[in-house]
Amino acid sequence: MSFKYLGAKAAAALDKELMSTGAFSIDQLMELAGLSVSQAVFRVHPPTKGRRILIACGPGNNGGDGLVAARHLFQYGYEPTIYYPKRSNNELYKRLAKQLEDLEVPFVQDFPTAAKSTDHILDAVFGFSFSGEVREPFPAVIRAMEQSTVPVTSVDAPSSWNIENGPPQSGLGSSFNPDVLVSLTAPKPLVKHFKGRHFIGGRFVAPAIARKYDFEVPEYTGIDQVVEVTPSGQKL
Amino acid sequence: MSFKYLGAKAAAALDKELMSTGAFSIDQLMELAGLSVSQAVFRVHPPTKGRRILIACGPGNNGGDGLVAARHLFQYGYEPTIYYPKRSNNELYKRLAKQLEDLEVPFVQDFPTAAKSTDHILDAVFGFSFSGEVREPFPAVIRAMEQSTVPVTSVDAPSSWNIENGPPQSGLGSSFNPDVLVSLTAPKPLVKHFKGRHFIGGRFVAPAIARKYDFEVPEYTGIDQVVEVTPSGQKL
Repeated sequence: MSFKYLGAKAAAALDKELMSTGAFSIDQLMELAGLSVSQAVFRVHPPTKGRRILIACGPGNNGGDGLVAARHLFQYGYEPTIYYPKRSNNELYKRLAKQLEDLEVPFVQDFPTAAKSTDHILDAVFGFSFSGEVREPFPAVIRAMEQSTVPVTSVDAPSSWNIENGPPQSGLGSSFNPDVLVSLTAPKPLVKHFKGRHFIGGRFVAPAIARKYDFEVPEYTGIDQVVEVTPSGQKL
Repeated sequence: MSFKYLGAKAAAALDKELMSTGAFSIDQLMELAGLSVSQAVFRVHPPTKGRRILIACGPGNNGGDGLVAARHLFQYGYEPTIYYPKRSNNELYKRLAKQLEDLEVPFVQDFPTAAKSTDHILDAVFGFSFSGEVREPFPAVIRAMEQSTVPVTSVDAPSSWNIENGPPQSGLGSSFNPDVLVSLTAPKPLVKHFKGRHFIGGRFVAPAIARKYDFEVPEYTGIDQVVEVTPSGQKL
């Protein structure tokens, strides 16, 4: 039995459908995505193992998921620090950032330096819509994560990886293999190259939607918003 | 040490502030409120004790919280049934109802009959903005809940109760005392009259906001969105 992945185009179409006929708002979906990510972080690295978590947020939806996760992590007792160099003018992202400022969560300008004094890194730079080259100022972020001695958790995709083909063959990102990956809704094809602990998050998909997009909804337990699967996305 | 409650006026002002300077959207707040409620239901009455849950939704925000909770409960393995007789034209509520329809969750028209074949009732009829009389068609709902032989969980307030003074002195609602109450953000003054299991939900409030409105943020644990407190709202 072959496992079904959600390619970049299918993931984009699914997102669009959830927000049109599916009647979800992006506020709702991002809240649930960020909540999933925060639960996976808690599972692999509870605050008793170190409260400091540095969160790299990209300019798009992946960064938004990171901002939501940061807020929940703060509430769980973590001390998040945010690196968010390319702030979007999008009203939702502005609000998510303001919610963190109201919690007095610090925002930093220098990721590589901040990465030297944290207990965990959350990579919310690029998601399923990433392709092509890593643009400034993110190359230094990818390099710092490649060389990190503390665990790195990636949201939906290890940033710099191609969604279909995985890590770049050489150069920036080619030796980046995060410790943890949280696939949102369903694993992307890149997981075939992933070797760490793998979670699926996003417990809100209707069975009819999963059938239409030909992926399996994993078996979540209790009230969990995430479920751990094998590195390549199969049932543990 | 006297315990601090959030009166009806203060609760309305807080909601307004969260959605203005607090930068939360109502989609976000309702998602988090409904999620809290679903977690409390799971805690007191896991699906192994009976999967059927009948959810009475009022026309306003309390009903919206019920619609969100219903979706999460479905995902946890419950079989929710919705009674939602006064559908709002508000776009958000329409979307929340559509999300349930996509899960093929049934909507019923006759609450008293449905209440005879369920394992649990969720009362999401009226919240902190309720005052005055219970209007049609809700008197029959209150009566059915008063007489229910299965547990009833109320969202934010036992419906028909006055937010400051508690249950009506006589007549409809005067003998309604739900088994479980989920106070959203902070307990309302009516909890002084409540005798069941009591949870506080809404783990997103900034410490500065709690100080301003003079209530205490309870100590949540782990990734929980709810915490159990005494019937009158104090630490267990």
